[in-house]
Amino acid sequence: MKGLYHGKMAVMFNQRIKDLRQKLLEEKLDGVLISSVANITYLTGYSNFFKEERDSYILITKDGNYILTHSIYSKSLENKIPGFKIVEISRREPPEKAIKNILKKNDAEIGIEEHDLKVYEYKKLLSVFKNLKNFDLKVRRSIKDKDEIRLITKACQMGDEVFEKVLKKIKLGMTEKQLVFEIENLINKRGFDLSFRTIVAFGANASAPHHQSGQTKLTNNQFVLMDFGVNYKNYCSDMTRTIFFGSPSRSRRKIYEVVLKAQKRAVDFINSCLKSGKEIKASMVDKAARDYITFRGYPTIPHSLGHGIGLQVHEHPLLSSKSKDILRKGMVFSIEPGIYLPAGRHGIPEFGGVRIEDLFVLEKDGLRQLTNSPKEMLIV
Amino acid sequence: MKGLYHGKMAVMFNQRIKDLRQKLLEEKLDGVLISSVANITYLTGYSNFFKEERDSYILITKDGNYILTHSIYSKSLENKIPGFKIVEISRREPPEKAIKNILKKNDAEIGIEEHDLKVYEYKKLLSVFKNLKNFDLKVRRSIKDKDEIRLITKACQMGDEVFEKVLKKIKLGMTEKQLVFEIENLINKRGFDLSFRTIVAFGANASAPHHQSGQTKLTNNQFVLMDFGVNYKNYCSDMTRTIFFGSPSRSRRKIYEVVLKAQKRAVDFINSCLKSGKEIKASMVDKAARDYITFRGYPTIPHSLGHGIGLQVHEHPLLSSKSKDILRKGMVFSIEPGIYLPAGRHGIPEFGGVRIEDLFVLEKDGLRQLTNSPKEMLIV
Repeated sequence: MKGLYHGKMAVMFNQRIKDLRQKLLEEKLDGVLISSVANITYLTGYSNFFKEERDSYILITKDGNYILTHSIYSKSLENKIPGFKIVEISRREPPEKAIKNILKKNDAEIGIEEHDLKVYEYKKLLSVFKNLKNFDLKVRRSIKDKDEIRLITKACQMGDEVFEKVLKKIKLGMTEKQLVFEIENLINKRGFDLSFRTIVAFGANASAPHHQSGQTKLTNNQFVLMDFGVNYKNYCSDMTRTIFFGSPSRSRRKIYEVVLKAQKRAVDFINSCLKSGKEIKASMVDKAARDYITFRGYPTIPHSLGHGIGLQVHEHPLLSSKSKDILRKGMVFSIEPGIYLPAGRHGIPEFGGVRIEDLFVLEKDGLRQLTNSPKEMLIV
Repeated sequence: MKGLYHGKMAVMFNQRIKDLRQKLLEEKLDGVLISSVANITYLTGYSNFFKEERDSYILITKDGNYILTHSIYSKSLENKIPGFKIVEISRREPPEKAIKNILKKNDAEIGIEEHDLKVYEYKKLLSVFKNLKNFDLKVRRSIKDKDEIRLITKACQMGDEVFEKVLKKIKLGMTEKQLVFEIENLINKRGFDLSFRTIVAFGANASAPHHQSGQTKLTNNQFVLMDFGVNYKNYCSDMTRTIFFGSPSRSRRKIYEVVLKAQKRAVDFINSCLKSGKEIKASMVDKAARDYITFRGYPTIPHSLGHGIGLQVHEHPLLSSKSKDILRKGMVFSIEPGIYLPAGRHGIPEFGGVRIEDLFVLEKDGLRQLTNSPKEMLIV
């Protein structure tokens, strides 16, 4: 492979590292050790390290950028990531030793990612470096630049295409797993990855927000909940649609309308804050949707209203009742209210759940929706 | 959903928890906190928690079994996992507080999984419990019981079926990504998951053991390396085959033969140890294959010879030159020698790599191979 990127892309990665180094200097650190694959991708563009195992670290010092990795990667990465030196690590040359060789300092202060680093790694680092401090890129990463928004938008467009196509595949008697396969197949066939394991829930199964799709068969007069995402060049989309298979009763139509309106309440709240120049508290956005659902007599949403998204499906900010986060321009996040009812509630023998989820980017003039599949209640 | 299991299965999970509790008593711990999804699956059979985020913990005490999880899981898990009590955790009721409520003891000693727990979780636990000790299930889990071997065997059989079918899909001009799609499609179509992201490498790309499959097109007279696995009921298979597209030269045939013989050397070494009743050192198995390859004049294998496999693709034991592990009956592991040559070496303008990987279970009478796709050099 040639170099991973050049020109405009190189400028972007350089800027990110420059920002990180600035923070390193402000916090008076000698080095920052980045371990999470998402942040390694964010800083280098390279995304091929395994998430399940520790394949590599990045070390940024006052005057150097290093990739610490095993021999099976080091050779193919040599000279491929502009501005980074490859340092081979192994059992004989563990990360703490490699870092010491680079910093040449006994009392070095090092930033680590406490949300990512494992205890065994922490203890090994501590055996050499006494001063380890938490270092967090999540707030920085929550503000997306133009290129990131372009990639997320593209991922959302793919998701919309997949949704349109999959509607034709929904058939009486099919299992949830078969519908999962149809969705994922449409994504993979285009050469893209999933951003997470697809959730499909039929009927009563939709009452569990994180249902594990199984062998349940589609019968008449059921809601079909589909929650899926596309990964496009490392950036994620995420969308949920709940359609109706059969002829919905009035009470079912009402539930759908309430969820849709709850989402609109949250959107309107954000836009009104923007207009009046008020700070947008994530907890208040959550409240706008949540209160509407309970006001209409349904149980409160059993999860948070939304989450930031980008290189990871769940990122900063968090839109929940306990969140302290403030929504800012450039943030991309989901708004996903839902009503989930166990069977036998509200006079409906087998209800399940309705969730409607879209991604939005917060722009100067208001929220812009990135997922654009139809939101009126689809009946197939 | 009904209870997750009953009868024979329930007995199996009960035994695993009994064993863990025995270890807890031996190590004089008040509780063991299990955080890794693989170990939660191992102890409960439940595998739906996200691997990317912390959805839950298991706490085993002297006299109780608990699942600590968020509200979106707690309701659907109630009464589903025999012998476990569900305890809801949240921002207001974090794990350390929930554990304290259960143990009702200030100086409790708790076992944690240092290879899995994150630093931020560790610090929170430390703020309440001063005595945290590493607790490891990896050696216990490396010895597979009959049911586990049955599931891995089934996963391997699926993999063999996929390999047979995919051979017909290999065509001049197709990209690596397209072949990845064909393999994964064959797995998904049967309703199974992947055990890891499929690796396909054409020609020179195969010289990087962890190549990221891309837009490279298949041309004539190239090796095609395929490394993939099936996940069957949470258990993984893993197999690599390298076939030849075109007419192989003598030197290419020779390289293939050397890799195949290196694998046989490792197998023969294990069987001879078994016969003579000698301890089987994993490092010596690695050496048997490695030395054969260098003796024949090729570069040493740039990775370890093999790894245990089960609920995870990479488990204890490790077959490498530095490993201290001993191979025992009931272990399931890969043996996967390879020769990787950058272009222009050994008189071959564009060589790449050959790897042959199979899974084996160590039985009383010898190694039994679980993957059974043809190993003679296939030419398509």
